Amino acid sequence: MFKQSLEKIVSNTADAIGAILMGYDGIGIESFRNPDNDTDMTLMGIEYSNTVKEIRNTAEILQNGELEEVSIKTDRYYVIIRHLTAEYFAALVLKRSGNFGQGRYQLLKESYGLREALLG
Amino acid sequence: MFKQSLEKIVSNTADAIGAILMGYDGIGIESFRNPDNDTDMTLMGIEYSNTVKEIRNTAEILQNGELEEVSIKTDRYYVIIRHLTAEYFAALVLKRSGNFGQGRYQLLKESYGLREALLG
Repeated sequence: MFKQSLEKIVSNTADAIGAILMGYDGIGIESFRNPDNDTDMTLMGIEYSNTVKEIRNTAEILQNGELEEVSIKTDRYYVIIRHLTAEYFAALVLKRSGNFGQGRYQLLKESYGLREALLG
Repeated sequence: MFKQSLEKIVSNTADAIGAILMGYDGIGIESFRNPDNDTDMTLMGIEYSNTVKEIRNTAEILQNGELEEVSIKTDRYYVIIRHLTAEYFAALVLKRSGNFGQGRYQLLKESYGLREALLG
């Protein structure tokens, strides 16, 4: 189920590179990569899991409420990270030519099913 | 000049709480807070400066290119962070009722002048 969800997010987003479902402990559960691309989604997930952990801690310290989403824009990529449960998050990586709004929406849309499956 | 820029960003964004200009070393240069609000912008800036530093390092490790923008959405706030120079960034904090797209745009618009003034 996880793989299909990730594939749906990637296929429905223009210029998406890949998507990953991952634990905040850096352990990847599932990933889907656009076959056109050789980006190492697992490595990316591990690196960003630390970042998201840090952001969660910061939000907690500042009593900013629970983390929902983080977007990172570099001159090469968009990375959109969606908090799912206390232990898991999903991330989508797009080329800069990709559609950021579409990516956010697709990730959000699939996040409900992913969350349910993780908790269920 | 810095204060006016920050004030412009906050005044032109619906439900903005405040904006800050800050070094990646956590030292605040200038801030402007919506008078309706008592959020501690400096504390927020210090905490998020660590986060942004971490994200920059991650992007570097992954050769993801230079960091441009980070957005964080919690169930209470939006935080939009714009990279300015090797040493400085600007951040805008909005209520969740605020207009995220408008905030991103206002921050981007003022970032050119801020960057020039910082480098100049």
